[in-house]
Amino acid sequence: MSQKVRIALDAMGGDYGPAVVVAGAELALARYPESEFVFFGHTALVAPLLAARPALKSASQLVHTDIVVRMEDKPSQALRYGRRKSSMWLAIDAVKKRQADLAVSAGNTGALMAMSKFELKTLSGIERPAIAALWPTLRGASVVLDLGASIGADAAHLVNLAVMGAATARILFGLDRPMVGLLNIGVEEAKGLEQVREAGRILREERLPGLDYRGFVEGDDIGRGKVDVVVTEGFAGNIALKTAEGTARQMAEYLKNAMSRSLGARIGYLFARSAFAQVRERMDPRRANGGVFLGLNGIVIKSHGGTDAEGFAAAVALGYGVVRDQLLAKITAALGRTGKESDPALGGAAS
Amino acid sequence: MSQKVRIALDAMGGDYGPAVVVAGAELALARYPESEFVFFGHTALVAPLLAARPALKSASQLVHTDIVVRMEDKPSQALRYGRRKSSMWLAIDAVKKRQADLAVSAGNTGALMAMSKFELKTLSGIERPAIAALWPTLRGASVVLDLGASIGADAAHLVNLAVMGAATARILFGLDRPMVGLLNIGVEEAKGLEQVREAGRILREERLPGLDYRGFVEGDDIGRGKVDVVVTEGFAGNIALKTAEGTARQMAEYLKNAMSRSLGARIGYLFARSAFAQVRERMDPRRANGGVFLGLNGIVIKSHGGTDAEGFAAAVALGYGVVRDQLLAKITAALGRTGKESDPALGGAAS
Repeated sequence: MSQKVRIALDAMGGDYGPAVVVAGAELALARYPESEFVFFGHTALVAPLLAARPALKSASQLVHTDIVVRMEDKPSQALRYGRRKSSMWLAIDAVKKRQADLAVSAGNTGALMAMSKFELKTLSGIERPAIAALWPTLRGASVVLDLGASIGADAAHLVNLAVMGAATARILFGLDRPMVGLLNIGVEEAKGLEQVREAGRILREERLPGLDYRGFVEGDDIGRGKVDVVVTEGFAGNIALKTAEGTARQMAEYLKNAMSRSLGARIGYLFARSAFAQVRERMDPRRANGGVFLGLNGIVIKSHGGTDAEGFAAAVALGYGVVRDQLLAKITAALGRTGKESDPALGGAAS
Repeated sequence: MSQKVRIALDAMGGDYGPAVVVAGAELALARYPESEFVFFGHTALVAPLLAARPALKSASQLVHTDIVVRMEDKPSQALRYGRRKSSMWLAIDAVKKRQADLAVSAGNTGALMAMSKFELKTLSGIERPAIAALWPTLRGASVVLDLGASIGADAAHLVNLAVMGAATARILFGLDRPMVGLLNIGVEEAKGLEQVREAGRILREERLPGLDYRGFVEGDDIGRGKVDVVVTEGFAGNIALKTAEGTARQMAEYLKNAMSRSLGARIGYLFARSAFAQVRERMDPRRANGGVFLGLNGIVIKSHGGTDAEGFAAAVALGYGVVRDQLLAKITAALGRTGKESDPALGGAAS
């Protein structure tokens, strides 16, 4: 793909608004020179930040709006005052109108999902979109979904999540048949949610061509990288993600404290500085920032609200990868497939 | 309490059976000389291990059985062949008959819970018992429950969990009114499970005397130690716990790899060895091993099946602490309290 990738940015989203969004776009542009940006936000706030970055400015457009979706609003409230006018809505709208290949926002997740559904509509066969993210593991990374787009899931929805997640893993990891697991508890005790067991039965029996179903996985299998795609309902998925982030932060804190406590530790730290930097980078939740909304007629990426420019750039990069590899077309094809026979156009599409 | 604490042990439970259980008991006895043990298991396997440990042997009894509950069996199967005869059942039975103050097993969780319910019965007002554990946090530790005793929870059950968890925190941490949070997702988006919101309303309005309700918490608030007690339904709780364990292991692995990669890192490691040992100890999931079954007429502790002697000793120590501080009597009193007025016998009971 030699064309430019056009990225619509909700410049006002997130805890720090334009300061982080513009600086993040600058980092992303340096890494992916084929990018172009459309910023939606308040000119008085965004224009000076662009003016200070000539390279970014020349690859960007700025569309003014003074309506901003607030972090604390319910989706219904946000839709009421932000529809057709807010920076978030306009970024999504650019995707709908094919003026952009994807939209990225660090704003209110619920509002972003509601507006994306309202404006882009779901793919045929999908009732509820999902949020997927790349989860760093000991083997590299896995796709984990749903991370909180909706709460609760019946077996059919879990199977849809498996299909969408596998399509994402095929593209992002270049795998033919990614290994897929259903997140459950204590398999050896024959426990677990009824819907999860039913979804497992369907996946086992249907033998869908684009994925390799590996059964149930438990929470500690995620970080181990036991499967390429971990499928779960949004409530548990969100709690797993945030718990892992919290644990990583806790470990980093322990390490920092221990390394400043004694003279020996401080000297050791000096010698091992680059090793520490490496561990810190791997522990850094910013590296894995960015959730892809799956199941919509268009690509929307949610960045953490509290991230910095580096984290926002990671979210943009995720969207860039997804668009370049035509995720959407592949998900649509996978969902259209009946499961009755192997479709060669799908199996090895991404490799 | 100057009396001995009498501990019934399922000697056959866990991935390694008597080897870990007996060695773990030896460690526990060294730390808590007021302990006494009753081992239930196969004499041919347990007796030689005790014979090699004279101090432990003189503080122990051994009751023979050759029936063992298998790790992979469903609770119903285990009850069918293991009732009245298995090492697991006999350990629980010893608690029922007041021959022991608590039982510890590293066996099949589902079977242990089913047998415990069957034999000990639930406390009045409690339909479903819960599993609670101590979760290491940046502030020290928090009580987290339910970690998988049952799946799904209505608002009333969540409120019961809050009460039982708070009673546990009062005792183990010596707090008057532990801070309690309900685990939920994305509070700012007015999202979350209906039952969780309803439980929050009840806790806010009832102002129960023995706890300080602090609203919703998210997954990353657990490791932060934002509250003393984190309440959640068993499916999400189990996934959160296992995910945190997996993440801690992942971080430890990153650190180990980084520290052996370059000469500088290896030299640094030598200088900072004791600091590393400290971090490793804090990251060590064995420290936090042991889940307390709450809501039963008797104390039963579940140890991880895959733990070693050090981990098993931690599970025994947890039970020891709970018994010494008379958790059961305090939970019963807290549940009996109507919430209409403050009960001074409860408020400061543990401090």
